[in-house]
Amino acid sequence: MAIYQHTFPNGLTLLAERMEHVRSAALNFLVPAGCTQDPPRHLGVASVLSDLITRGAGNRDSRELSLALDSLGLDRDESVGGIHMRFWGATLARNLIPALEIYADIIRRPHLPADEVEAVRALALQDLQGLEDEPRQKVLIELRRRHYPSPLGQDRRGTKSGIASLNAEVIRAHYRRLFTPRGTIISVAGNIEWKELKQEVDRLFSDWDGPTPPPLKVGKQPAKRAHLPKETQQTQIAIAYPSVPIGHPDYYAALGAVNVLSGGMSARLFTEVREKRGLCYAVWATYTTFKDRASVLCYAGTTNERAQETLDVTLGELQRLQDGISADEVERVQAGLKSSLIMQEESTSARAGTLASDWYYLGRVRSPEEIQEAVNALTPRKITHHVRRFPPSDFTVVTLGPKALRLKHELVSV
Amino acid sequence: MAIYQHTFPNGLTLLAERMEHVRSAALNFLVPAGCTQDPPRHLGVASVLSDLITRGAGNRDSRELSLALDSLGLDRDESVGGIHMRFWGATLARNLIPALEIYADIIRRPHLPADEVEAVRALALQDLQGLEDEPRQKVLIELRRRHYPSPLGQDRRGTKSGIASLNAEVIRAHYRRLFTPRGTIISVAGNIEWKELKQEVDRLFSDWDGPTPPPLKVGKQPAKRAHLPKETQQTQIAIAYPSVPIGHPDYYAALGAVNVLSGGMSARLFTEVREKRGLCYAVWATYTTFKDRASVLCYAGTTNERAQETLDVTLGELQRLQDGISADEVERVQAGLKSSLIMQEESTSARAGTLASDWYYLGRVRSPEEIQEAVNALTPRKITHHVRRFPPSDFTVVTLGPKALRLKHELVSV
Repeated sequence: MAIYQHTFPNGLTLLAERMEHVRSAALNFLVPAGCTQDPPRHLGVASVLSDLITRGAGNRDSRELSLALDSLGLDRDESVGGIHMRFWGATLARNLIPALEIYADIIRRPHLPADEVEAVRALALQDLQGLEDEPRQKVLIELRRRHYPSPLGQDRRGTKSGIASLNAEVIRAHYRRLFTPRGTIISVAGNIEWKELKQEVDRLFSDWDGPTPPPLKVGKQPAKRAHLPKETQQTQIAIAYPSVPIGHPDYYAALGAVNVLSGGMSARLFTEVREKRGLCYAVWATYTTFKDRASVLCYAGTTNERAQETLDVTLGELQRLQDGISADEVERVQAGLKSSLIMQEESTSARAGTLASDWYYLGRVRSPEEIQEAVNALTPRKITHHVRRFPPSDFTVVTLGPKALRLKHELVSV
Repeated sequence: MAIYQHTFPNGLTLLAERMEHVRSAALNFLVPAGCTQDPPRHLGVASVLSDLITRGAGNRDSRELSLALDSLGLDRDESVGGIHMRFWGATLARNLIPALEIYADIIRRPHLPADEVEAVRALALQDLQGLEDEPRQKVLIELRRRHYPSPLGQDRRGTKSGIASLNAEVIRAHYRRLFTPRGTIISVAGNIEWKELKQEVDRLFSDWDGPTPPPLKVGKQPAKRAHLPKETQQTQIAIAYPSVPIGHPDYYAALGAVNVLSGGMSARLFTEVREKRGLCYAVWATYTTFKDRASVLCYAGTTNERAQETLDVTLGELQRLQDGISADEVERVQAGLKSSLIMQEESTSARAGTLASDWYYLGRVRSPEEIQEAVNALTPRKITHHVRRFPPSDFTVVTLGPKALRLKHELVSV
């Protein structure tokens, strides 16, 4: 495997991996314009911008732009995370350079047409309103909002008043403030030639200039307990607790611990909560990271009658991690992590995503061999040691359903 | 690409594709035990069986079985469709044969333990009940139920009374009636050796015997209009109309027509309903087929205020197909279909799935070249001709939300 990297004088980083046995290629732009940069008065502006930005760019109007991208056979998606706005696309390798040319227009020369703002705002409002009909998403959004200090847990959907406040001027100012080569990462994986790719990116982006991205001001942490009352058929339970970020020496042990809980059908949460007790159809835990902090998020959806039991058993499993982990559990976790690593290596989209996220978090790209070695080095002792140093505790708990639940001696209150 | 096929004397078919540049392999079992075979008194039995069947098999109990599969790094899933129960797994190619050995136990020698039936039933009930909190899924399930003659549109989740009626005896009888080599398809794609694979499948499955799968009795069509009243924030709209099945000479033209409506951001539904009017955040159409009949299913989720306009515009776009299709639309559709074909060729899971479904629907496996030629041969004239011979009409329409909608002069009634 050949991995290439170049940072242009304007601060833009290009990453590429040549995969010569495939015919496709995937590209990925991370622009430091995630929703945590939304001004408090304009919550939702990143989402609205991510829709408006493809409605005409360079010398193409909205219709011509969609048609040009579709005519390259591009499967694509624009999305807004906490830190980045992401532009993702995958197509035949031979269509990659033409696609990059169009993305240069979108990212550098979008029209952001005033006469389409109303339609885009209407869609953003619907996306926000639709959440009320999706209790599972709703509880996870509220969990993130309560677990992180503001604005880290902010949701991309914004608020009703924030979306209503938007007009073309506000959106264009937001674009000018955040779309900048400094901190932007372009990653490509697939059957591509590095020399040609670098030349083209140089031609398309090296004269791009822009301000230094503003630093993120982290504020206060909201209350860590909430119950969202709603007359639903099921109670939704969401739990979060702190973990170590991806650059931390304990990172692989932390990942191992989460996979003991939830990775495969013999993992603890699946076995204890779902299989043995039949408490919930869906239960999982997942690791998620920022640069400087990380968390484990857990979810369970269950009947209203058995919600209290589900919360108790789930929290019990989180705390039981400290009692020790067996050798067969670690062996299973290693097999799962190694197998998913191989799968990712075979997917151009997965590789393009990993190149960019490794660069953002670590300032370098890990080789599959490095990850495999770290996974092979996991032992019951290492994982247990990690869990005891960073025990699951200081829980954020959000529930949604007809009735509030008890957290030991404490009620999960409204 | 090398594709292999063998049908054993007991009726079992094995299909394989050797992909020598990958390290993974995916496997896929289709057993003719889909939910359309659920007896009317026991609706939901296929789903319950698909959960119980992995709770111990051969000489392993439930825990040992999960652990054995997880220790092979197998990413896996058991699911129930209308026609088949599907067992899917993907892992390192070198773990494929050991995984097949375990699946032979699951499929031929499951314990179906009586003492786990209660937990499995509780989970099935939760899955069913959870639908009430998921209006989007709910409307699509009701659409299928109304669009097809019974039992073709039946949902795998069954009914409350059906699930309550289940015990170990009923489930075991259902297993014995439907788990049979006749009509079962095993497909494998990845870095595998055909000779070794065939030998192992011969060893594991050639002495398997079972009854001939019972033919499906197709009954009556329920009323084609329904409104499901619910105090939701959004109105869910689902529409279906007949199309031609996959073996039909017009199949690729039908696929082309659906992609004119919904495939890429410049497709008609996306442009007219979402982009121009801002009517709904999500709108799409998709083609779905049985052996002898097929449909186009459309979905739109919108605000209650604009639901009527959304229904009108969407139906208008379906009917407008007959007015003709432009050359640039067909070019875009071809680019999209060819690009997604290449992506599928690079994924072991996608290939394993396609081998099995082609065999089931067509009795042979299409080569990528055959599909590509058929896609290249599409023209505006061919697609328009198809749409005029099989015009979108005879619509099934199901809505969910606070208010019923009007279908031209007809109310979508309760």
